[in-house]
Amino acid sequence: MVIILEKNATEVQIKNVIKHLEDYGFEIHQSQGVERTILGAIGVQPNFDTRKIKILEGVSDVYRVTSPYKLASRSFHEDNTVIKIKNVEIGSQNISLMVGPCSIENEAQIFRLAEVVAKSGVKILRGGAFKPRTSPYSFQGLGEEGLKLIRQAADQFNLLVITEVMQIDHIDMIYKYTDILQIGARNMQNYSLLKELGKVDKAVMLKRGIAATIEELLMSAEYILASGNKNVILCERGIRTFEKYTRNTFDLSAIPVIHKKSHLPVIADPSHATGIRDQVPPMARAAVAAGADGIMIEIHDDPENALSDGPQALLPDTYLNLIAELKLIATAIGRTLE
Amino acid sequence: MVIILEKNATEVQIKNVIKHLEDYGFEIHQSQGVERTILGAIGVQPNFDTRKIKILEGVSDVYRVTSPYKLASRSFHEDNTVIKIKNVEIGSQNISLMVGPCSIENEAQIFRLAEVVAKSGVKILRGGAFKPRTSPYSFQGLGEEGLKLIRQAADQFNLLVITEVMQIDHIDMIYKYTDILQIGARNMQNYSLLKELGKVDKAVMLKRGIAATIEELLMSAEYILASGNKNVILCERGIRTFEKYTRNTFDLSAIPVIHKKSHLPVIADPSHATGIRDQVPPMARAAVAAGADGIMIEIHDDPENALSDGPQALLPDTYLNLIAELKLIATAIGRTLE
Amino acid sequence: MVIILEKNATEVQIKNVIKHLEDYGFEIHQSQGVERTILGAIGVQPNFDTRKIKILEGVSDVYRVTSPYKLASRSFHEDNTVIKIKNVEIGSQNISLMVGPCSIENEAQIFRLAEVVAKSGVKILRGGAFKPRTSPYSFQGLGEEGLKLIRQAADQFNLLVITEVMQIDHIDMIYKYTDILQIGARNMQNYSLLKELGKVDKAVMLKRGIAATIEELLMSAEYILASGNKNVILCERGIRTFEKYTRNTFDLSAIPVIHKKSHLPVIADPSHATGIRDQVPPMARAAVAAGADGIMIEIHDDPENALSDGPQALLPDTYLNLIAELKLIATAIGRTLE
Amino acid sequence: MVIILEKNATEVQIKNVIKHLEDYGFEIHQSQGVERTILGAIGVQPNFDTRKIKILEGVSDVYRVTSPYKLASRSFHEDNTVIKIKNVEIGSQNISLMVGPCSIENEAQIFRLAEVVAKSGVKILRGGAFKPRTSPYSFQGLGEEGLKLIRQAADQFNLLVITEVMQIDHIDMIYKYTDILQIGARNMQNYSLLKELGKVDKAVMLKRGIAATIEELLMSAEYILASGNKNVILCERGIRTFEKYTRNTFDLSAIPVIHKKSHLPVIADPSHATGIRDQVPPMARAAVAAGADGIMIEIHDDPENALSDGPQALLPDTYLNLIAELKLIATAIGRTLE
Repeated sequence: MVIILEKNATEVQIKNVIKHLEDYGFEIHQSQGVERTILGAIGVQPNFDTRKIKILEGVSDVYRVTSPYKLASRSFHEDNTVIKIKNVEIGSQNISLMVGPCSIENEAQIFRLAEVVAKSGVKILRGGAFKPRTSPYSFQGLGEEGLKLIRQAADQFNLLVITEVMQIDHIDMIYKYTDILQIGARNMQNYSLLKELGKVDKAVMLKRGIAATIEELLMSAEYILASGNKNVILCERGIRTFEKYTRNTFDLSAIPVIHKKSHLPVIADPSHATGIRDQVPPMARAAVAAGADGIMIEIHDDPENALSDGPQALLPDTYLNLIAELKLIATAIGRTLE
Repeated sequence: MVIILEKNATEVQIKNVIKHLEDYGFEIHQSQGVERTILGAIGVQPNFDTRKIKILEGVSDVYRVTSPYKLASRSFHEDNTVIKIKNVEIGSQNISLMVGPCSIENEAQIFRLAEVVAKSGVKILRGGAFKPRTSPYSFQGLGEEGLKLIRQAADQFNLLVITEVMQIDHIDMIYKYTDILQIGARNMQNYSLLKELGKVDKAVMLKRGIAATIEELLMSAEYILASGNKNVILCERGIRTFEKYTRNTFDLSAIPVIHKKSHLPVIADPSHATGIRDQVPPMARAAVAAGADGIMIEIHDDPENALSDGPQALLPDTYLNLIAELKLIATAIGRTLE
Repeated sequence: MVIILEKNATEVQIKNVIKHLEDYGFEIHQSQGVERTILGAIGVQPNFDTRKIKILEGVSDVYRVTSPYKLASRSFHEDNTVIKIKNVEIGSQNISLMVGPCSIENEAQIFRLAEVVAKSGVKILRGGAFKPRTSPYSFQGLGEEGLKLIRQAADQFNLLVITEVMQIDHIDMIYKYTDILQIGARNMQNYSLLKELGKVDKAVMLKRGIAATIEELLMSAEYILASGNKNVILCERGIRTFEKYTRNTFDLSAIPVIHKKSHLPVIADPSHATGIRDQVPPMARAAVAAGADGIMIEIHDDPENALSDGPQALLPDTYLNLIAELKLIATAIGRTLE
Repeated sequence: MVIILEKNATEVQIKNVIKHLEDYGFEIHQSQGVERTILGAIGVQPNFDTRKIKILEGVSDVYRVTSPYKLASRSFHEDNTVIKIKNVEIGSQNISLMVGPCSIENEAQIFRLAEVVAKSGVKILRGGAFKPRTSPYSFQGLGEEGLKLIRQAADQFNLLVITEVMQIDHIDMIYKYTDILQIGARNMQNYSLLKELGKVDKAVMLKRGIAATIEELLMSAEYILASGNKNVILCERGIRTFEKYTRNTFDLSAIPVIHKKSHLPVIADPSHATGIRDQVPPMARAAVAAGADGIMIEIHDDPENALSDGPQALLPDTYLNLIAELKLIATAIGRTLE
């Protein structure tokens, strides 16, 4: 921790700051600049609340030296984490796709779409059975019945399943049917849920909250990692800004930033980031070009009657054209997509 | 719902839009403007996804006519909701204070602070036993032991208790010790939790998420109301913006806006909004002047050793001076504060 | 400047960083922490681009020690700046009001409103003759004719004038008619304009840009101060956030923050911050309670036919009631308002 | 314009709203919904302030039917605008690059970099002679001397020039030396400047303000178009959000949105959007993949000694590698880049 004193801080104030730091367990290095005194507080306390020093008389600014997350950081684990689930690797040189409907609606729907997914060469099927909806009056998902259907469809076409878990007492049930457990954006800081998912021996995909900084996303990943689960995948799905013509602002620069700060793989979700079908292909292409380790895409073969998020679902034909483009872009940047 | 067609929409496109609307159950009124056709879609479907129409060919814009929340709206319930708990009323002409430490730390601390609160004439004691912390390595609260302590302290000084609930399987336990259950900002869209708290027969205070719009706050309130609990209190505690000199931006204009849109009482929390002690008094004064129905304030008599958020806690003396100022401002705008 | 090295920075990297710093003219203090090396770079270079060091191999973070503004900072000038214009003081214990229409529309209008202003005891008349409008097809102001009218109206009722200047080649003309030159939010970073206004011997009120940080506002004030004009007034008028129910989010915590960082007076403008008439009174009250040195309010006696911003103008009666409330709040916090 | 009345609006209120609309020159269509009355106000008044109706008693919401810009809209001009300057086309199927240093620093520098640009096959040289800097103490550009140098360097290597204009009284001078006049983000709403550039017979590139919506960008373009200059190029360069790990958030979804709403070409500037060298290549690739009509990139062969923005400049070698990747991505999406 580095403490910058005020230009006109008195000797008494500086001594008081030093005393506090020593009481908190730090060792102190003092430097005298042209105009100000600077204190270096030595000692690893990653969750020390720097405001404790900032409010002392004579203090101008306080900066943390160590990042507040550890297990999630690249300095802790230099190589990329590659997560292996059956025959699939996430975080390798290959770009993974996760494709399927927003919600599982009925047996015929999920089997038809699983077939589209499998035929396109994709290995992971997405689909929600428990849906976090802004309105209490909206469709809330099929529940366990939906989980059974997506598992059967996935098994039939030799696919992995990813589906969302919203509450602790659902974890055991969902665990039985899925390969990857997804934490939605609204639950990114539901710490009780994060801790419990840290005890599970399946991969967890953590979506960035709509107003979460990248640092907070990594802190939430740290909760899962610290509870024992090393198989954490991150997901960028758009952040909230003042812009009104798009549902969210897709923060693609988060991809190279996370790759620099962390060893965990990053998936991009252009369907939720944009919310409108015709923006999904350009943004999916941009996400691959920016270096995403995977892309999550919603598709539907009857979007006008979809029970949720139909307007952002791609039709199968558009989807197949998009896959072809994404493969070319992957090649252009020296990766594969299959 | 109102649908604005593109200037150059064709007859075929317009007919297709009308057919879709009719299939979704709406009755149609068609108007011809100078440059464009406008369709009025009549029928109450508050959670209809307007994007379903927006993506049709020839459609320029779609606007919802009914607000997406109902039970929370002023048009559903014209008079202010006043919540009565024992001898306390929240939402009346009197402004309620909720005061206490961030975390319950030990018996002596909560009893000392409860005494400060009671002597200042305030009737509601705040204090956290389960703490949502950004870092998994930070103090997470005393748990049920803390709940017992705050209840004993409150009873000794004849105070009500407000404390936070973070997960469904804690509700029954926390219910036994508290008068008001608080939902923190990070859980504002934890719909599973909201639904369960809608079944409880005690008041619930719902904090606005750090990046939630006022409309989303009211939608989350709707979840609680629709599950049967009418005693919902809202709380503004700062939103996230680009400004770096403050922890959050305290959105005080939310207070008159909520009063216009909804009948529910609104509390303001300047301690979390600003995050720094010396900004709490001016912002508490501003919140009263803006029309808040209550103010939540964190205090501590040894903030340097507080286990959480010490830097934003007021010292008892500063707190007592502030109360005196707040009373004068309440009088200036024709309200009381006691 | 403080430089935090990466945990695994090599000796060669550290030496390279030190060499760069020395080449840039800094003297170096090196500290060894438990996990990392920290460098203190001593030497005052307030506008040094810290990214130059941040991109070097082995560097984790770089923090500036000196604030990037000097003349605007409280550490340069400890006492509040009080600006005296004829018999008016801005920045003293008294709270100044600046009241009038958005635009000067015609002789009768500005004289009628000047009379309302004067009778309410207020000493500064506002009114725009050159209007920055989002649409090129909107009313752009009366130009010099408007300036003549507002000057005549102000002289008749013994008022000061504040009006906006949008471009350099208008400064001489506007100078003749006004007492305070206003720089609008859209021009806060029009540095050419700021430099020229720094050469003028009348007070300048600088409005915060819609997405400017407080630090950037102070940097823009620094442009004016550095060009020689010490009479700078700052103005908070709302910032842009994701919230849709208000035009802007009125950042009232900017008031105590600016008072801490700077010696310059701060005015609050609730009319532009909210954009809707019925939110102006609660937000004006809140601004006084938060410690603003002045309030700018738009009034109109025929807002339905106003040529600009009628919907945010208060009617004279509402305005007079508000003034009475503001006086009571000023008294409550130990200030006057006259 | 469409007006939604309150559920409990009275007959008197509705008649009053209709009277106001008629007085403002609209013709009225009235529709009766299940719960509410809806009014369609027919008549083209693109800059009508909808708040005038919103504040009337009984009105719930008001929506504009026509977009506030006209000449910039795709419905006014269906085909893409292609701007031809000598042998270069901007806005065609080919993607244009604009490359060069942030600032022109001296003769040798601009000639060396112009040579790099020309050898890479790029046809437009960028470089600033008048620089808008946050600090008054930073390098402000070489002025006219810089303009002369960039023109000579461009002529030597057969390149076009793009450079920024900051104030009206510089337009004539800059016009002599440049092919495209650039308006910086800070001046996007400097309407006086926009109007004057509308009278110029050379192309203008308008950068999006750091907190401007896409609609406001198009409104500012409308100022230039309405003054007579049809050769307007738009530029996305990052917007301000709460994220702290990047300088700005690069809003790439603005590209497909602008292509839908407008016929004007869109350039993307990853150098300013990210502010850090190692994020420029992934974001440049993403911008091409998202459909940008051009990319603006800053390069420098001695970035450590650059007088401005060195940390975001690419070294020539990195730049040449990037160009090769961008060409492959352009091919992948069916475009060319040369």
